[in-house]
Amino acid sequence: MYPDPSIVTRVTTLGAGPIGGGWAAHFLARGYDVTAYIHSEAERAALMAVIDTGWISLEALGLVEGASRDRLTVTTDLDAAVRNAQFIQESAPERLELKQALYKRLGEVAPKDCVIASSTSGLMMTDIQKDCPTPERTVIGHPFNPPYLLPLVEIIGGKRTDPAAVQWAAKFYEVAGKAPLIMKKEIPGFVATRLQEALWREALHMVANGEATPEDIDNALMNGPAPRMAVQGQCMAFHVACGEGGMATNLDQFGPALKWPWTRLEAPELTQDLRDRMVDGCNEIAAGRHFEEMAAQRDREIVAVLNAIRTARE
Amino acid sequence: MYPDPSIVTRVTTLGAGPIGGGWAAHFLARGYDVTAYIHSEAERAALMAVIDTGWISLEALGLVEGASRDRLTVTTDLDAAVRNAQFIQESAPERLELKQALYKRLGEVAPKDCVIASSTSGLMMTDIQKDCPTPERTVIGHPFNPPYLLPLVEIIGGKRTDPAAVQWAAKFYEVAGKAPLIMKKEIPGFVATRLQEALWREALHMVANGEATPEDIDNALMNGPAPRMAVQGQCMAFHVACGEGGMATNLDQFGPALKWPWTRLEAPELTQDLRDRMVDGCNEIAAGRHFEEMAAQRDREIVAVLNAIRTARE
Repeated sequence: MYPDPSIVTRVTTLGAGPIGGGWAAHFLARGYDVTAYIHSEAERAALMAVIDTGWISLEALGLVEGASRDRLTVTTDLDAAVRNAQFIQESAPERLELKQALYKRLGEVAPKDCVIASSTSGLMMTDIQKDCPTPERTVIGHPFNPPYLLPLVEIIGGKRTDPAAVQWAAKFYEVAGKAPLIMKKEIPGFVATRLQEALWREALHMVANGEATPEDIDNALMNGPAPRMAVQGQCMAFHVACGEGGMATNLDQFGPALKWPWTRLEAPELTQDLRDRMVDGCNEIAAGRHFEEMAAQRDREIVAVLNAIRTARE
Repeated sequence: MYPDPSIVTRVTTLGAGPIGGGWAAHFLARGYDVTAYIHSEAERAALMAVIDTGWISLEALGLVEGASRDRLTVTTDLDAAVRNAQFIQESAPERLELKQALYKRLGEVAPKDCVIASSTSGLMMTDIQKDCPTPERTVIGHPFNPPYLLPLVEIIGGKRTDPAAVQWAAKFYEVAGKAPLIMKKEIPGFVATRLQEALWREALHMVANGEATPEDIDNALMNGPAPRMAVQGQCMAFHVACGEGGMATNLDQFGPALKWPWTRLEAPELTQDLRDRMVDGCNEIAAGRHFEEMAAQRDREIVAVLNAIRTARE
């Protein structure tokens, strides 16, 4: 039903803000023809400013052959922008009624085999697609700020979304140079935002209680877990740090510490099922690699990150 | 009372594990004469393995002039190891009774003007120093794993610690190439561990509820917030992302979202006082820089990080 994601050459972006403009810049850098819909001519300068800012980074990361800002068309005509679209990335303001009305129109005008992805960070697709006459191809494709730089896109459909559209979006984002993550369930927030938000709330608690300043929080992150987390997620960080025993040792040995008041977030019950999911998940990621090999790789990459930051600051 | 931190040339480390050995490697790389106390000769091979592993990274980060692994002395004689020490980094096993007995002896033998820092990640110095005859110079100096790579050291004294010893330790760690962070209060856990632990508990909740796999968690972190967090902490990330309005806009506009069920961690009440602390704190870090300047710097550094990781993996 949907075309092969690798033959897509035209992308339509909706929105002139940092997210909409960031997406336009990203797709231009990946060699697509981009049609950017803006609500009014007054938004054109803002859109171009976001694209020009993003372009500096995108050039430094490496453009694909043929990529050019000349392949951008900006229009205030919504129907014209989406009528021949092969993929639509919507980054309109975060107001449900506005998005519902927009998806009603998009559902009528955009080709039926064109997947429409929303950048929303707070709304659920089940709500957004309520008045859309063709909701089966509407998904959430939530980027991480800044969207022209960070690879993550979290994808989930609504109740009336065709699972094939979710799969198509994941494949398309991958072809377009992003790191797609298909969510398992439609829940408020996304995997990365929930993790970040838990950390953020703990930070607010610490500041509220006079235990740390914002500067302490930021210094602790930048000099502590973050350089490692950029090259190795928290699950594998614990898995590798525990040597031969891996995640099993981590949970069996430090499981009781989950009851300690180390954060204001209460830990879940460490059931056998949860333990097994964590252990099995880490073993799957490890794919047979020995922990020493993974630790050596982690170290090489942290060194690269630290040296890169130092060089960039000199 | 304490010597100038910059004239210290000899460091004694206690412990042959990844933390103790990691510290020994770090101090050697910074050009110190290091005496490493190990509990028995059977631990020597493990200690050397940790140092040799760390050395690969430390060489890649750049040794200071004159740094050499030949300047390491390994001994099983505790008294001899600490009798002439100028600084002691203790990384003994995490058992309170063991540490209390150790600090009793250290307090008798080590010079009175020699600060003793514990790498403990879970015990409080007030408890560790209970039987120490000279508790005023004992502090916690908690590193982040791997200690030869990540700069953060969180510092806090116990009830009987001289505040001057805490200040001295912070200055010494800075001279020794670390990023010290003096904790405001003696609480269970440290700033970075609490932030990491909040994130970790949310991750466990998501896996327990079938909302994500360990692989999803790690991919979300590595492709989402982590590369940014390595160059810009979460407070400044929100401050800069909100443009002219900064942290004030973030809290005033998105404050209500703190009530949303975006994590299992309940947010603190967003009082005027908390709001002001966050806003003032970010403005202090910004030190007059315009958000566009900070965003451009963030982007340059994220590009450097992403390119460095890609190159290291090729």
